[in-house]
Amino acid sequence: MGATPVKRTSRDIRTANRYEVLRQIIASSPTSRQELAAATGLSLATVATLVGELLDLRMITEVGFEDSAGGRPRGLVAVNASGGALIGVDIAETYVYAELYDLGLNVLARAEERMRPGQSTPEEVVAHVATTTRSVVAQAGVESARVLGVGVSMPGQVDRATGVSEYAPNWDWQDVPLLDLLAEHIPYPLYLDNPLRACAVAELWFGAARGYGDAVVLILGTGVGAGLILGGAVHRGVSSSAGEWGHSTLVLDGRLCHCGNHGCVETYVGAPGIMQNIRELSPRSPLLHPGDQSATIDALAAGLAAGDPDAVKVVRDLARYLGAAIADLVNVLNPEVVVLGSWVAIRLGTPLLREVRAAVARHALKRPMAATRIVLSPILTDSVCMGTATLALEGALQSVGQTTGKRATRARSRTAPPT
Amino acid sequence: MGATPVKRTSRDIRTANRYEVLRQIIASSPTSRQELAAATGLSLATVATLVGELLDLRMITEVGFEDSAGGRPRGLVAVNASGGALIGVDIAETYVYAELYDLGLNVLARAEERMRPGQSTPEEVVAHVATTTRSVVAQAGVESARVLGVGVSMPGQVDRATGVSEYAPNWDWQDVPLLDLLAEHIPYPLYLDNPLRACAVAELWFGAARGYGDAVVLILGTGVGAGLILGGAVHRGVSSSAGEWGHSTLVLDGRLCHCGNHGCVETYVGAPGIMQNIRELSPRSPLLHPGDQSATIDALAAGLAAGDPDAVKVVRDLARYLGAAIADLVNVLNPEVVVLGSWVAIRLGTPLLREVRAAVARHALKRPMAATRIVLSPILTDSVCMGTATLALEGALQSVGQTTGKRATRARSRTAPPT
Repeated sequence: MGATPVKRTSRDIRTANRYEVLRQIIASSPTSRQELAAATGLSLATVATLVGELLDLRMITEVGFEDSAGGRPRGLVAVNASGGALIGVDIAETYVYAELYDLGLNVLARAEERMRPGQSTPEEVVAHVATTTRSVVAQAGVESARVLGVGVSMPGQVDRATGVSEYAPNWDWQDVPLLDLLAEHIPYPLYLDNPLRACAVAELWFGAARGYGDAVVLILGTGVGAGLILGGAVHRGVSSSAGEWGHSTLVLDGRLCHCGNHGCVETYVGAPGIMQNIRELSPRSPLLHPGDQSATIDALAAGLAAGDPDAVKVVRDLARYLGAAIADLVNVLNPEVVVLGSWVAIRLGTPLLREVRAAVARHALKRPMAATRIVLSPILTDSVCMGTATLALEGALQSVGQTTGKRATRARSRTAPPT
Repeated sequence: MGATPVKRTSRDIRTANRYEVLRQIIASSPTSRQELAAATGLSLATVATLVGELLDLRMITEVGFEDSAGGRPRGLVAVNASGGALIGVDIAETYVYAELYDLGLNVLARAEERMRPGQSTPEEVVAHVATTTRSVVAQAGVESARVLGVGVSMPGQVDRATGVSEYAPNWDWQDVPLLDLLAEHIPYPLYLDNPLRACAVAELWFGAARGYGDAVVLILGTGVGAGLILGGAVHRGVSSSAGEWGHSTLVLDGRLCHCGNHGCVETYVGAPGIMQNIRELSPRSPLLHPGDQSATIDALAAGLAAGDPDAVKVVRDLARYLGAAIADLVNVLNPEVVVLGSWVAIRLGTPLLREVRAAVARHALKRPMAATRIVLSPILTDSVCMGTATLALEGALQSVGQTTGKRATRARSRTAPPT
């Protein structure tokens, strides 16, 4: 493995700035170029150029003027929701789920295909993705030409550059060229990544990480992991496998994990780990629904709401494990925000959050702890789908720079700011 | 705590590219612009501009021509070692140590001041730094005007932008404006950071992380921590306290740490933790030199070399702890290289490295493990001093961009750290 020189180009910066401006427009439509400059820290001239590009792409639209105190009226722009459609697909162990969004990231259509155990060859999975994709396009009545892209989330280790599913632990896939297989059936630009990165990018654009340079987005579900946002962008690592916090050692020589290591965070705080915690506390607990993670977590949430002492004890125990494991990320990465996401976090909600905050504070160093907010994900729809749709949006914005040398110039002159 | 918009400017890129080109020249003098373009991935035009700036600053010099196959002779440049001097200062618990370097990062002079317990007020420490700085300048016979800067490493949490030592655990300093105090006695541009970042930047410029985008530099000494290089630059975190890997929980409810948490990595793999490991294995072990970490680690190294079974067992035990704790970083960050540095790693050397590699492989996921090299630091001098001197070099290069053509604002950088 040779050293790879780190190349930074001004195109990378233009793309990042284009993301930043569109993010801000989506968040605060209608808005003016002046407000965008203030919110992003970019110069008014840069903002005007980027706004021109987005207008030219019909991703945003001019929506009138506002008075400015004593000055000329300022032009307002807003996201052009119907200017394009984005599809996000979440491939999970037992289902494929797709959502179609407009450019305001409103959900226009949904489709789901269930998969039985054993029905998980690459061909079967590709067929489910193609079916759900066709279904959401038909339901929403969107013209094909307006679909800007399809983002697909595949669990495990994914090389987004080559579109290969390198390793999917649940199905034991090895080096499946998933993007190529999908491209045979789906006539839109395709983007592949894993759920950790999908959720991170959803929080970065539309959720709790918006505007932060360094954020950690935790996935707390059957499996657990961390999507990392460092320096304002998703951190992927050298072989696209960063974020495997679920396989950090929390208890040396502790519970055996399916990865082969002992004492992994996931074995204590993933849904099966929580079931094991309940079993160790009280083998016949009525909270426990053997073989049914979802029902067990629901019972726990209901027990919490009713003040059941066993449920309170289980959640306190869970928070103790999470507290130490999250404190490790706070100490090592010193992020501005830690977001708790995915279904276990969402169902256990505020009572879990309260316990986790107290537990992290017991384990973390004081200074980084004081600089870090710990919050629940505010994203109400499926954040994996929203994240993959956002990856498709990023892809569409990135390709702008490669193809619009001329158009950008024209757009710039058309939208020159009032002086 | 509000969200801070992430600003990226083309000046940041120019500075990063300037670092990259000078790093490459230092590593492979003499070299041509063509070779530099190939090694850095930058365009020949960009390289020519940056080389011009460095020539103008007299940091490099033209040294002749080489034939190119069939083409014009290519101009060669080399680092101008005598074109400036850099000073690195390592403030530690019991000493202040300074080194003066030429621009080829050769050590020209060294000075040390011992400190007794209790002699650690900010005023006393500042006096020691001033004395060692004066001493190295006098020894090397360098003109004051040629000293480009002094980098100072202070343990604990340091805000490099304001130059404040926010928290130094050993001395219980809180919010000491160290850079301002130093500026009253030292007439050169000053840069403050902590040892984790100093060692990371030394490895990035001159050591095992050269040319890598994502690297982890472990400090294994009395305390332990991780300098993080992510995306080709040092990751500092939102409150400049990233890298506190020593306070990750390795053993839930394990040994009490001075930070207040239990089971921290540092309590098992820092020098005092290693002494505790020996004590637990065999309370009267001849390896143990009570109250003397340095003698204990030396005895362990000697025992290893002689094949003493107790020493072998202690190192295997140490590697087991390190293996799990390093695997956490490999899984979460997916770096290209992990560098073992500082005095414990250097004295235990290759036998420790061999055991650590095997232990990390047992704990880490296969894919990120396959992508990560684990190596000993190749830096032979004090890497904290070399790192802080490099921070001063970075500061000098950064201020170029601010003053290109004028260079008149140099006096301002005398008291203002780089931002």
